[in-house]
Amino acid sequence: MKLKEFARQLGLSPTTVSRALSGYPEVSEKTRKRVAEEAVRLGYRPNINAVRLVTGRAGAIGVVMGRSGEFQFAEFMSGMAERLDGEDIDILVSPTADRGLTDEIPLFSRLVTSGRVDAVIVHSPEPNDERIAFLRELGFPFLVHGRSETHVPHAWLDIDNEGAIRRATSHLIDLGHKRIAMINGRAGRTFSLHRDKGYRDALEERGIPFDPRLVAHGHFTDELGFRFARSFLEQSPRPTAFVAGSMMTALGIYRAVRSRGLVVGRDISVIAHDDVFPYLTADNMVPSLSATRSSIRAAGARAADLVLQLLGGRVAEEIHELWPVELILRESTAPPPQAEPRS
Amino acid sequence: MKLKEFARQLGLSPTTVSRALSGYPEVSEKTRKRVAEEAVRLGYRPNINAVRLVTGRAGAIGVVMGRSGEFQFAEFMSGMAERLDGEDIDILVSPTADRGLTDEIPLFSRLVTSGRVDAVIVHSPEPNDERIAFLRELGFPFLVHGRSETHVPHAWLDIDNEGAIRRATSHLIDLGHKRIAMINGRAGRTFSLHRDKGYRDALEERGIPFDPRLVAHGHFTDELGFRFARSFLEQSPRPTAFVAGSMMTALGIYRAVRSRGLVVGRDISVIAHDDVFPYLTADNMVPSLSATRSSIRAAGARAADLVLQLLGGRVAEEIHELWPVELILRESTAPPPQAEPRS
Repeated sequence: MKLKEFARQLGLSPTTVSRALSGYPEVSEKTRKRVAEEAVRLGYRPNINAVRLVTGRAGAIGVVMGRSGEFQFAEFMSGMAERLDGEDIDILVSPTADRGLTDEIPLFSRLVTSGRVDAVIVHSPEPNDERIAFLRELGFPFLVHGRSETHVPHAWLDIDNEGAIRRATSHLIDLGHKRIAMINGRAGRTFSLHRDKGYRDALEERGIPFDPRLVAHGHFTDELGFRFARSFLEQSPRPTAFVAGSMMTALGIYRAVRSRGLVVGRDISVIAHDDVFPYLTADNMVPSLSATRSSIRAAGARAADLVLQLLGGRVAEEIHELWPVELILRESTAPPPQAEPRS
Repeated sequence: MKLKEFARQLGLSPTTVSRALSGYPEVSEKTRKRVAEEAVRLGYRPNINAVRLVTGRAGAIGVVMGRSGEFQFAEFMSGMAERLDGEDIDILVSPTADRGLTDEIPLFSRLVTSGRVDAVIVHSPEPNDERIAFLRELGFPFLVHGRSETHVPHAWLDIDNEGAIRRATSHLIDLGHKRIAMINGRAGRTFSLHRDKGYRDALEERGIPFDPRLVAHGHFTDELGFRFARSFLEQSPRPTAFVAGSMMTALGIYRAVRSRGLVVGRDISVIAHDDVFPYLTADNMVPSLSATRSSIRAAGARAADLVLQLLGGRVAEEIHELWPVELILRESTAPPPQAEPRS
């Protein structure tokens, strides 16, 4: 829809609409809010370049990147790059030493006050995330990738981690598995907590007691996947199935299973969460890997899109997107072996 | 070394040295050059924050990121982040649609003219790279990660791709392999050409004829590694060894070998190039993977360091760093099976 048509439907002049979307003070807060709401309702997307020309914006979105170099981060940024290509908007990456989320506050503070970014994206929040409270207090546009439990109003985009892992675990129970191990992400982050909850709820629904010895948390690496899986497989009775937080974790589990002389998809079932990386494909693994799937690149593209909407005047409190996650069944999942496994 | 001590050794005042390193016009070009050279020779590293305060620099290094989301890029940036942590210098990422290097010229142009970056890093050059000529003409500080064959003077940092692959190939020949397949990176990039040359030279030195049917080029993904390896293994006689451009490629090769009922390290030898990713370890693969190894994170950290030196006044033409690459032998390499392989 063109600006003219959108303005006509609102009974306003194109100039007023344009100014409202650019956050010009001449337009009342009430009109600005109405225009933003109608833009969402009618699917009108303002031309951000035009908006930026008149507002003199910085032309960059800020993110904070840890030293741990998580591979998901690159893929998310590629998605952002995909959406921002041709928009003349860059991504400003602020380096951090990964000492903890509290240490990111000065970085966000600097990003905001430097005038070099128009908005920032906050990644992988904790339930009560200081960064969100801080940015809200400053009144600076920001989007959270992931969820917190704060009451501070903010825009967020997340995938349904809880539902995905509940479904994966339930499916394994349906197949007859009772001892299901879970290799989850970093403790304390909301996405890990949601996955823990999905796992526990699925067990509880079916009357299977929760065993803390079957759950581990850590960075998503093949090394940790291997080590945790080796350690779980030494238990007696050993688990017959694994739920894994990432593709890298699954690579480690596959190797651990093989190193014990067992076979994935026969002796041990595996379901992993697949962020859909161009360089590592669940379908190509041997056996092909059953997975809960959601493209983190698509999330990056959508996050950039939502930030542009925020900059175009859309109200942050209205931006709450929860994406469903699909479960793709392949060869790595099967009923457990008939005989009770012995170690 | 402190500024005062460094200035004393040069027989100049600290103020003159500081101004020289900041590129102040009051200091003659001759003195500026001498100070920069002596700084390198004596290992004096100026405090970039102090420099920036007086020069009013932008406080960011620019890079252009393609949509293909190569996993190496994230690791390189993590290295940069490691070095820049605490320096109050950010990384400005300009998104591109990967239509080719020529399309990056307007992006670099925009980065340079926007005043938002103090220097830029150019990745993965071609032998005659337009971006290098363009940036040199503008007189803007830049560092090339990789090498070109241009006569345009510029600063660069690269690993010895040619030497690494020559050594890997020679080692396979020493073990008795004659049919050695090579799965290389994207055609046309200098690093791929260097690797091709290392491979061909090793064969030639030992009188083994080059067979173009044993060489493939493409993005570093497990999918392409798998497909190329499958196709090579269908040849008769089939190759008994693989040289692979990346860890992801090696994952695909391992699966292809397994899917043919063959065993890596017994029927088929594999050496891959390992950029040292925290999430995927050559040592943990089964069998553990022999590799030419060079940390791309260390390269990122050093690249950031060299850019800071450029900004501190070091002359670009002096910055030519070629890093040797080590060859680590593990279980994936062995002499070829005694009997001639049949398909």
